[in-house]
Amino acid sequence: MRVTVRVIRRPDIADPQGATTLRALHDLGFSQVRSVRVDRTLHLEVDGDDPEAVRSAVDEMCRRLLANPVLEDFEVEVTE
Amino acid sequence: MRVTVRVIRRPDIADPQGATTLRALHDLGFSQVRSVRVDRTLHLEVDGDDPEAVRSAVDEMCRRLLANPVLEDFEVEVTE
Repeated sequence: MRVTVRVIRRPDIADPQGATTLRALHDLGFSQVRSVRVDRTLHLEVDGDDPEAVRSAVDEMCRRLLANPVLEDFEVEVTE
Repeated sequence: MRVTVRVIRRPDIADPQGATTLRALHDLGFSQVRSVRVDRTLHLEVDGDDPEAVRSAVDEMCRRLLANPVLEDFEVEVTE
Protein backbone atom coordinates (compact mmCIF):
# COMPACT_ATOMS: atom_id res chain seq x y z
CA MET A 1 0.00 0.00 0.00
CA ARG A 2 1.08 3.56 -0.58
CA VAL A 3 1.34 5.79 2.45
CA THR A 4 1.98 9.53 2.58
CA VAL A 5 3.46 10.97 5.78
CA ARG A 6 3.55 14.73 6.28
CA VAL A 7 6.04 15.79 8.93
CA ILE A 8 5.18 19.30 10.04
CA ARG A 9 7.29 21.48 12.27
CA ARG A 10 5.19 22.79 15.13
CA PRO A 11 4.19 26.42 14.58
CA ASP A 12 5.82 27.61 17.80
CA ILE A 13 9.18 25.96 16.97
CA ALA A 14 11.76 27.94 14.99
CA ASP A 15 12.52 26.66 11.48
CA PRO A 16 16.19 27.35 10.66
CA GLN A 17 15.91 25.92 7.13
CA GLY A 18 12.96 28.21 6.41
CA ALA A 19 14.78 31.22 7.90
CA THR A 20 17.87 30.55 5.76
CA THR A 21 15.73 30.18 2.65
CA LEU A 22 13.93 33.45 3.41
CA ARG A 23 17.24 35.28 3.76
CA ALA A 24 18.51 33.83 0.47
CA LEU A 25 15.30 34.88 -1.32
CA HIS A 26 15.72 38.42 0.03
CA ASP A 27 19.36 38.43 -1.11
CA LEU A 28 18.13 37.52 -4.61
CA GLY A 29 15.74 40.50 -4.57
CA PHE A 30 12.50 38.68 -3.75
CA SER A 31 11.65 41.15 -1.00
CA GLN A 32 7.92 40.40 -1.25
CA VAL A 33 8.38 37.11 0.61
CA ARG A 34 7.33 37.45 4.27
CA SER A 35 7.97 33.97 5.60
CA VAL A 36 9.07 30.49 4.58
CA ARG A 37 8.52 27.22 6.38
CA VAL A 38 9.84 23.89 5.17
CA ASP A 39 8.12 20.58 5.87
CA ARG A 40 8.92 17.14 4.54
CA THR A 41 6.67 14.60 2.93
CA LEU A 42 7.58 10.93 2.87
CA HIS A 43 6.11 8.47 0.38
CA LEU A 44 6.27 4.88 1.57
CA GLU A 45 5.35 1.60 -0.08
CA VAL A 46 4.39 -0.85 2.64
CA ASP A 47 3.42 -4.51 2.34
CA GLY A 48 0.03 -5.34 3.84
CA ASP A 49 -3.66 -5.80 3.03
CA ASP A 50 -5.30 -4.05 5.97
CA PRO A 51 -5.22 -0.25 5.76
CA GLU A 52 -5.76 0.12 9.50
CA ALA A 53 -2.85 -2.21 10.32
CA VAL A 54 -0.63 -0.38 7.85
CA ARG A 55 -1.60 2.99 9.31
CA SER A 56 -0.91 1.75 12.81
CA ALA A 57 2.54 0.45 11.80
CA VAL A 58 3.42 3.73 10.06
CA ASP A 59 2.24 5.70 13.12
CA GLU A 60 4.76 3.71 15.13
CA MET A 61 7.50 4.36 12.53
CA CYS A 62 6.78 8.09 12.87
CA ARG A 63 7.03 7.98 16.65
CA ARG A 64 10.25 5.95 16.57
CA LEU A 65 12.11 7.37 13.58
CA LEU A 66 10.40 9.51 10.97
CA ALA A 67 9.39 12.50 13.10
CA ASN A 68 11.02 14.24 16.02
CA PRO A 69 8.33 14.24 18.70
CA VAL A 70 9.79 17.30 20.42
CA LEU A 71 9.72 19.51 17.31
CA GLU A 72 7.33 17.98 14.82
CA ASP A 73 3.84 16.68 14.29
CA PHE A 74 2.94 14.13 11.64
CA GLU A 75 -0.05 13.09 9.55
CA VAL A 76 -0.34 9.60 8.04
CA GLU A 77 -2.54 8.95 5.02
CA VAL A 78 -2.95 5.48 3.49
CA THR A 79 -3.83 6.17 -0.12
CA GLU A 80 -4.28 2.77 -1.74
CA MET B 1 -0.92 35.40 -0.18
CA ARG B 2 -0.10 31.89 0.92
CA VAL B 3 1.77 29.72 -1.53
CA THR B 4 2.59 26.02 -1.27
CA VAL B 5 5.56 24.70 -3.24
CA ARG B 6 6.09 20.96 -3.60
CA VAL B 7 9.63 20.06 -4.57
CA ILE B 8 9.65 16.52 -5.91
CA ARG B 9 12.71 14.49 -6.72
CA ARG B 10 12.44 13.11 -10.25
CA PRO B 11 11.50 9.41 -10.22
CA ASP B 12 14.62 8.38 -12.14
CA ILE B 13 16.98 10.18 -9.73
CA ALA B 14 18.28 8.32 -6.67
CA ASP B 15 17.05 9.58 -3.30
CA PRO B 16 19.82 9.06 -0.71
CA GLN B 17 17.72 10.42 2.16
CA GLY B 18 14.93 7.97 1.30
CA ALA B 19 17.40 5.08 0.99
CA THR B 20 18.93 5.87 4.40
CA THR B 21 15.48 6.10 5.98
CA LEU B 22 14.49 2.75 4.46
CA ARG B 23 17.62 1.09 5.86
CA ALA B 24 16.94 2.55 9.32
CA LEU B 25 13.33 1.31 9.23
CA HIS B 26 14.55 -2.18 8.34
CA ASP B 27 17.10 -2.01 11.19
CA LEU B 28 14.21 -1.22 13.56
CA GLY B 29 12.34 -4.31 12.32
CA PHE B 30 9.87 -2.65 9.95
CA SER B 31 10.68 -5.13 7.20
CA GLN B 32 7.31 -4.56 5.49
CA VAL B 33 8.48 -1.22 4.07
CA ARG B 34 9.46 -1.58 0.41
CA SER B 35 10.51 1.95 -0.47
CA VAL B 36 10.76 5.47 0.94
CA ARG B 37 11.03 8.74 -0.93
CA VAL B 38 11.39 12.11 0.73
CA ASP B 39 10.08 15.34 -0.81
CA ARG B 40 9.94 18.79 0.70
CA THR B 41 7.05 21.19 0.89
CA LEU B 42 7.61 24.90 1.37
CA HIS B 43 4.94 27.25 2.72
CA LEU B 44 5.51 30.86 1.73
CA GLU B 45 3.72 34.05 2.65
CA VAL B 46 4.15 36.49 -0.23
CA ASP B 47 3.00 40.12 -0.52
CA GLY B 48 0.81 40.78 -3.55
CA ASP B 49 -2.79 41.06 -4.76
CA ASP B 50 -2.63 39.26 -8.10
CA PRO B 51 -2.47 35.46 -7.80
CA GLU B 52 -1.01 35.11 -11.30
CA ALA B 53 1.78 37.60 -10.56
CA VAL B 54 2.53 35.84 -7.26
CA ARG B 55 2.60 32.45 -8.96
CA SER B 56 4.93 33.77 -11.64
CA ALA B 57 7.31 35.23 -9.03
CA VAL B 58 7.35 31.98 -7.05
CA ASP B 59 8.00 30.00 -10.25
CA GLU B 60 11.07 32.16 -10.72
CA MET B 61 12.14 31.60 -7.08
CA CYS B 62 11.89 27.84 -7.69
CA ARG B 63 14.02 28.02 -10.82
CA ARG B 64 16.63 30.22 -9.14
CA LEU B 65 16.78 28.85 -5.59
CA LEU B 66 14.09 26.58 -4.19
CA ALA B 67 14.46 23.57 -6.49
CA ASN B 68 17.46 21.97 -8.14
CA PRO B 69 16.50 21.87 -11.82
CA VAL B 70 18.79 18.92 -12.49
CA LEU B 71 17.27 16.65 -9.84
CA GLU B 72 13.87 18.03 -8.95
CA ASP B 73 10.51 19.14 -10.30
CA PHE B 74 8.26 21.60 -8.52
CA GLU B 75 4.57 22.46 -8.25
CA VAL B 76 3.37 25.90 -7.15
CA GLU B 77 -0.10 26.41 -5.68
CA VAL B 78 -1.41 29.82 -4.61
CA THR B 79 -3.97 29.03 -1.95
CA GLU B 80 -5.35 32.40 -0.82
